Amino acid sequence: MAGIVYLIGAGPGDPDLITLKAVKAMQAADVILLDDLVNRDILQHAPQARVIEVGKRGGCKSPPQHFINRMMIALAEQGQTVIRLKGGDPFLFGRGGEEMLELRSAGIAVEVIPGITSGIAVPATLGIPVTHRAYTHGVSFVTGHLQDGESGQNWKALAESGTTLVIYMGMKHLATITRELLETGMSPDTPAAAIQNGSLPQQQHVTSTLALLTTAVQQAGMGSPAIIVIGDVVRLAHSKDLLQSVSIAA
Amino acid sequence: MAGIVYLIGAGPGDPDLITLKAVKAMQAADVILLDDLVNRDILQHAPQARVIEVGKRGGCKSPPQHFINRMMIALAEQGQTVIRLKGGDPFLFGRGGEEMLELRSAGIAVEVIPGITSGIAVPATLGIPVTHRAYTHGVSFVTGHLQDGESGQNWKALAESGTTLVIYMGMKHLATITRELLETGMSPDTPAAAIQNGSLPQQQHVTSTLALLTTAVQQAGMGSPAIIVIGDVVRLAHSKDLLQSVSIAA
Repeated sequence: MAGIVYLIGAGPGDPDLITLKAVKAMQAADVILLDDLVNRDILQHAPQARVIEVGKRGGCKSPPQHFINRMMIALAEQGQTVIRLKGGDPFLFGRGGEEMLELRSAGIAVEVIPGITSGIAVPATLGIPVTHRAYTHGVSFVTGHLQDGESGQNWKALAESGTTLVIYMGMKHLATITRELLETGMSPDTPAAAIQNGSLPQQQHVTSTLALLTTAVQQAGMGSPAIIVIGDVVRLAHSKDLLQSVSIAA
Repeated sequence: MAGIVYLIGAGPGDPDLITLKAVKAMQAADVILLDDLVNRDILQHAPQARVIEVGKRGGCKSPPQHFINRMMIALAEQGQTVIRLKGGDPFLFGRGGEEMLELRSAGIAVEVIPGITSGIAVPATLGIPVTHRAYTHGVSFVTGHLQDGESGQNWKALAESGTTLVIYMGMKHLATITRELLETGMSPDTPAAAIQNGSLPQQQHVTSTLALLTTAVQQAGMGSPAIIVIGDVVRLAHSKDLLQSVSIAA
């Protein structure tokens, strides 16, 4: 009997932010390949399944992508029901697209079960809606990951689009990103926030402005994983610390 | 005892694409205010709750937003646990931001529970990842809703951003939107898809190109609600009908 691979989004961190569809798939799983950004509490839905960790832990290098692909293919060819559990959503910066194509070309049945993406859910924990009619007509989700020292983003076009900018994987190169955005002519006073470990008990955040965000993040001692939000919607954050962060950092 | 309002995202349509957190909140609800894009099967999680329909049904006008706001406030002031259940995610074109602010200024406790947004999950049903490293570094979610005949979008900047474009509420003015995108210099051959009733059994879709999408949608007799996707990632759709649609419509 042929196996199948489910590419499943586990959401931003809070174990209750997983879908019923994902829970049902987990209950029928033989084996789960787990990324390290996934909250382990989610595994309670699959006590019967073998769990294989395929993410980076404690500074170790993660198994290369082709090794993960081959493992999924081999397990499915043995007739197993395989779950590839990823943080957030598998199709928004999750490499789910690449894995789907590999599985398809190997003739393996694959189904995608979407997850709550951090770029929407994490700002929501502070009361920041990524869109609001009074402020913007849209939102752009981009990576802050650099290749060869370049972000590959057209920051000028993104700034001119008028959309809220939500940046994933942007903490390491935050100073470069904010400088490039300032160089496009975006106002230094544009409200900006960074939120680490969003939706988890250890969540930390700063709200500030585009010009002062890097300093505010450094002062708070924050790092990855985090979501960065830049745009007027950040004004709607519940906390009163927008002005405080600015005055601390100024 | 003070009441509370939960602004909850019900996801794109498939009743299993709701979160465990939403289900738990529904189990404790006294009353549910329901939008009409929400799948009624989801109400099975709250058999005890009173359900009030606040969306447009059968061409009737929906209750004005301020009426919904006043109803939520009045119910919460009576000490009730109120759920405002919306399609997709409340903070991405869901007016959740506006409702949150109204509730906050009335002194009502409000909690947001994110939902799976259609702009990610609906393309995924066709195997389209909204991002893929080989094609794009990001995705922009925008509305196609016009105000005074204008979309309010900077299509030129959006096209130059190089992000995948996902357009919500764009079917009514699809011809205008695609014409404006072509006028920015975006290639007429850019792959494009429209998906109606995504994630539901009655889902319908066409894949085509930017230049031919409007014709393809008309030929298929499609309407709202639908998600439009424009960008190279549409090439990854499983179906073989990308080329077919093009040849039909050409």
